[in-house]
Amino acid sequence: MLKVGVIGYGYWGTNIVRNFHQCQESCVEMVCDKNTKMLQRLSQSYPNIRTTTDYNDVINDAQIDAVAVVTPVWAHYELAKQALKSGKHVFVEKPFTCSVTQADELIDLAEAKGLQIMVDHTFLYTGAVKKIRDFIDNGTLGNLYYYDSTRVNLGLFQHDINVLWDLAPHDLSIMDHLIDAKVEAISATGQKHLNGHEDVAFLTVYFSNKVIAHINVNWLSPVKIRTTLIGGENKMLVWNDLEVDEKIRVYDKGVRIQNSNDVYNLLVSYRSGDMWAPQVDRGEALSEEVSHFVDCIRAGKKPKTDGHAGRRVIQMLEAANKSLLNRGEAVAL
Amino acid sequence: MLKVGVIGYGYWGTNIVRNFHQCQESCVEMVCDKNTKMLQRLSQSYPNIRTTTDYNDVINDAQIDAVAVVTPVWAHYELAKQALKSGKHVFVEKPFTCSVTQADELIDLAEAKGLQIMVDHTFLYTGAVKKIRDFIDNGTLGNLYYYDSTRVNLGLFQHDINVLWDLAPHDLSIMDHLIDAKVEAISATGQKHLNGHEDVAFLTVYFSNKVIAHINVNWLSPVKIRTTLIGGENKMLVWNDLEVDEKIRVYDKGVRIQNSNDVYNLLVSYRSGDMWAPQVDRGEALSEEVSHFVDCIRAGKKPKTDGHAGRRVIQMLEAANKSLLNRGEAVAL
Amino acid sequence: MLKVGVIGYGYWGTNIVRNFHQCQESCVEMVCDKNTKMLQRLSQSYPNIRTTTDYNDVINDAQIDAVAVVTPVWAHYELAKQALKSGKHVFVEKPFTCSVTQADELIDLAEAKGLQIMVDHTFLYTGAVKKIRDFIDNGTLGNLYYYDSTRVNLGLFQHDINVLWDLAPHDLSIMDHLIDAKVEAISATGQKHLNGHEDVAFLTVYFSNKVIAHINVNWLSPVKIRTTLIGGENKMLVWNDLEVDEKIRVYDKGVRIQNSNDVYNLLVSYRSGDMWAPQVDRGEALSEEVSHFVDCIRAGKKPKTDGHAGRRVIQMLEAANKSLLNRGEAVAL
Amino acid sequence: MLKVGVIGYGYWGTNIVRNFHQCQESCVEMVCDKNTKMLQRLSQSYPNIRTTTDYNDVINDAQIDAVAVVTPVWAHYELAKQALKSGKHVFVEKPFTCSVTQADELIDLAEAKGLQIMVDHTFLYTGAVKKIRDFIDNGTLGNLYYYDSTRVNLGLFQHDINVLWDLAPHDLSIMDHLIDAKVEAISATGQKHLNGHEDVAFLTVYFSNKVIAHINVNWLSPVKIRTTLIGGENKMLVWNDLEVDEKIRVYDKGVRIQNSNDVYNLLVSYRSGDMWAPQVDRGEALSEEVSHFVDCIRAGKKPKTDGHAGRRVIQMLEAANKSLLNRGEAVAL
Repeated sequence: MLKVGVIGYGYWGTNIVRNFHQCQESCVEMVCDKNTKMLQRLSQSYPNIRTTTDYNDVINDAQIDAVAVVTPVWAHYELAKQALKSGKHVFVEKPFTCSVTQADELIDLAEAKGLQIMVDHTFLYTGAVKKIRDFIDNGTLGNLYYYDSTRVNLGLFQHDINVLWDLAPHDLSIMDHLIDAKVEAISATGQKHLNGHEDVAFLTVYFSNKVIAHINVNWLSPVKIRTTLIGGENKMLVWNDLEVDEKIRVYDKGVRIQNSNDVYNLLVSYRSGDMWAPQVDRGEALSEEVSHFVDCIRAGKKPKTDGHAGRRVIQMLEAANKSLLNRGEAVAL
Repeated sequence: MLKVGVIGYGYWGTNIVRNFHQCQESCVEMVCDKNTKMLQRLSQSYPNIRTTTDYNDVINDAQIDAVAVVTPVWAHYELAKQALKSGKHVFVEKPFTCSVTQADELIDLAEAKGLQIMVDHTFLYTGAVKKIRDFIDNGTLGNLYYYDSTRVNLGLFQHDINVLWDLAPHDLSIMDHLIDAKVEAISATGQKHLNGHEDVAFLTVYFSNKVIAHINVNWLSPVKIRTTLIGGENKMLVWNDLEVDEKIRVYDKGVRIQNSNDVYNLLVSYRSGDMWAPQVDRGEALSEEVSHFVDCIRAGKKPKTDGHAGRRVIQMLEAANKSLLNRGEAVAL
Repeated sequence: MLKVGVIGYGYWGTNIVRNFHQCQESCVEMVCDKNTKMLQRLSQSYPNIRTTTDYNDVINDAQIDAVAVVTPVWAHYELAKQALKSGKHVFVEKPFTCSVTQADELIDLAEAKGLQIMVDHTFLYTGAVKKIRDFIDNGTLGNLYYYDSTRVNLGLFQHDINVLWDLAPHDLSIMDHLIDAKVEAISATGQKHLNGHEDVAFLTVYFSNKVIAHINVNWLSPVKIRTTLIGGENKMLVWNDLEVDEKIRVYDKGVRIQNSNDVYNLLVSYRSGDMWAPQVDRGEALSEEVSHFVDCIRAGKKPKTDGHAGRRVIQMLEAANKSLLNRGEAVAL
Repeated sequence: MLKVGVIGYGYWGTNIVRNFHQCQESCVEMVCDKNTKMLQRLSQSYPNIRTTTDYNDVINDAQIDAVAVVTPVWAHYELAKQALKSGKHVFVEKPFTCSVTQADELIDLAEAKGLQIMVDHTFLYTGAVKKIRDFIDNGTLGNLYYYDSTRVNLGLFQHDINVLWDLAPHDLSIMDHLIDAKVEAISATGQKHLNGHEDVAFLTVYFSNKVIAHINVNWLSPVKIRTTLIGGENKMLVWNDLEVDEKIRVYDKGVRIQNSNDVYNLLVSYRSGDMWAPQVDRGEALSEEVSHFVDCIRAGKKPKTDGHAGRRVIQMLEAANKSLLNRGEAVAL
């Protein structure tokens, strides 16, 4: 039974606690938050979980095996570092850290101590992403052309990070998982309208093998959109995460170009066939993720979203921020 | 009665001919195309229109007052130049020319000869764009934050231009018409997968006053999307051009940030109210555009989409192509 | 080459003329309409077709082999009868006649004269209906449970018939084509609000083998809906005729009930699988229908939508009208 | 503080318990269910609530002021009767009882004892229904023409009632609340395919003043639909309860018929204007309902959905069942 301490009991913290609580192989020992009202609510639902407003109580508790850091980004590094130093495995909210330097330090520390880091890139544990990965592995899509995601809504403005750091980690971790090619360069554009951080931003990731990815994130959209187009040589798909029943639609569509000496007589043929919406596992992703974390600690194996996976996302975000300052000038990775 | 000669009778040419034919104040005198089958079809529908496979017949015809150039882009400049030299007003398909230099030459020529140039930026004559312009003029939207358009579908691959030159002129001309700010810089990213031209591309336009525009164009999308989000200080709108009945939806949504000395206690308030889909004029845009062309020639006044409007679009496309070569490096205008 | 005369050149008449004109094996000889403006328009597009305002000119013309009756319903019987008497094959707009008696008389007359009757139930020639028929024939759907169609919009009010006679013939002919069971009884309810005819109506058709069909028609709906649910033992489908690309969606869903002695412990299991949108032929249905008419006349064979098919629809409409008068009391067929 | 006992802790029971628990003026004293696993789950979340498998414990408990009956329909009458006899107010799941006779008996008993009955017609407490009622009260819609609801999905088959008794009570209670006219007659059609109860059914309600209502319910639909069209003389609306953000859309559409001596020259004019989606209160309906129940008991006033409201729904269901047996023959009320 893995004993978990949770630091941060806001909106997402409640889900983390619930899942570690429901998991057969783990239990929540202690929860820390500065907001005592939230702690009272917790006690109503979970009378057996100890509460504290001092994170040191969690980090130094001898009973606790692993610490979940579910705070704003700026606090991740310090809390994770202290937890690792105190011999605890860590589960860290996304994005992992504020910089690659911080990420490297945590990864090294964990390795030195023989501890596990898991970054909470929840989407990798959803039925939708697992299904898309299957379609790549079994050749359904063929070679990938592009990944194009729109992730926009009204708010919630973050105070310490821009919209890229808030929303793009989802897509960056998904891309990192799905696209079997090397990131070559990143270009980002955007604008700050309200609180000194970019609230509208656009990110292009150049991969090797001519794969290109694009992410559109926006805190100022009147409508919520969670749509990703993925184009492959054989088939193309649309993933609409707001659909309840048919999140993924696979289109038997394609383009074939026949070589010709004369560019003006290039033969382009279009293929159009059936559309197909495969059934997608509807289990709660966080539940599977938490089980995976517990399993990895037990078996001493690397989680799917370990510190290195978290670091790759931070590296892309750092490059994106640098590119943003220069209005889209590509930053090589 | 304005007598019009049309060069190019492909898909769009048939609409041009139909509209000049139906317009009370104009008639089609002659149509030129290399494809004699298309000319036979024309004759079935319009037995009184003369046909030819030699564009010189159109350009040199003494009866003809104006020439419509409805050919691929690479031919626009030469045909328009000859038509202007021959004393004809010209109506040119979008994009206007292949370069700013060509556009300047045509504009100068037309001015020297006292002739009109009109570029076929049809969208500016649609009910949807006119309604959005009204919402800007009467303050409904308030100061603009961003313009974000997605214009993707499968094909049709062009042989002489990339997807930006094919699809982005629509949005560039609409932006040029709607956004009352100066273009400062352009950043474009994209990738070539099939025929040596970019088939997926993303364009960011930095305007003064923190307005930002973004255009997502793609010939390799399994679904057709024609959606534009426009964010303003007072209201925000979604224009879905594929909707038959409710193309424009105006959302009474907004964000207000209260200044605070402490960034971590910044007060962000969200306003959420009714949605409203105003009735939009459904008249055929091309019909109104053709009437406008005829009126302008008669009255000797500048068309809404004159050579200068066409040139501004070409200038942005040239900058975009330059930026594409450098993976998003901004090109100042 | 079948020579066709057309009586009635309103909205649908223009489609009829265009299709008989484009068909390789037929041509339009003469068109009759009382509205001389419509005839002038016709002459602009088809200078070689003769026009008249007297339908006798069509019926008595020696050149004409077949007469298309594209008028309001009340005139079908008289015009078709005279055309048949004059030795012409007839193509009659739906609904076939005003009564079963009229239908019988026309069928008998045609048989006596060796002439063909075709009723314009266009939907039976669409890709969507052909695809659904395939799914029934190849067992994809399994035994049918129900057919449930909603066909509503604002207007167009007809002056001589109620909304059932206006809109339900589409579904009645489709049902007649798809459902391999006998109609047992019909129940119809509805209400008259504006012009003395029912503008909202609901029709239930009881078939043998527990198949049930339902049709919801309405001239007073703020939105246009053309959606049909078809439930089968193996699979279920939704046909949304307003979709451009994915008109038919097949759901791998089902219910299985295990027999049990105890009704309260009845075991119900639900099956939920993939959804699948097969590609549907997009050819113009009327074009195929017109070719079929010409072929049938040539080969002396019965059209798919012959007089008997038209009569079965009229029989159901007559029963529905009778049921309407008694607020839903079933009328046995 | 109203002390509530709850009988039945299935899916809906959990919502009832949560809402009586969260309500400031009530608390849950005891919960009864035959399923001890459910009771264990309850104890985990609410350690202070007593549990029992014998409903008599609830009914006879001296502490308890009110009993919520959240069981299958067949048990409502007996449990409510015993609770009333024991001096408890009752909150009964919909549909109220199995027959009008039972309903009358409970109403009489409650009145004799000075106790309140509330039937759980939750929809009447939703933002959507309240907004529609506002539109009727303030004349936005004008005189009503029709109410047309589609409420279909796959399962959940009930063992003791047909699909009408399962799904139609929602619409019947909403209609009863919205339509200010007298029910004259009811016609129902349907079919039994699987378990001996109708799983597909269609209900027409004839009101005075030419208002007509129609309800389409189905346990065998591959898709879930919750859409109601409401047509009025001034405006029409579509209520799609599955929409998250824009549940109600009001259309400025209408039809006007100008009287004419000649029916064939009847002038029909169509009005088409803006569409408007008013913001709708998103509060949980059950929370408001539970507060209303507590308030009514305190103040001794009749709940909005009292026993009489529940009885009117049962009366319509009884008539519908009778009509179903005769394939749609209207039953007068």
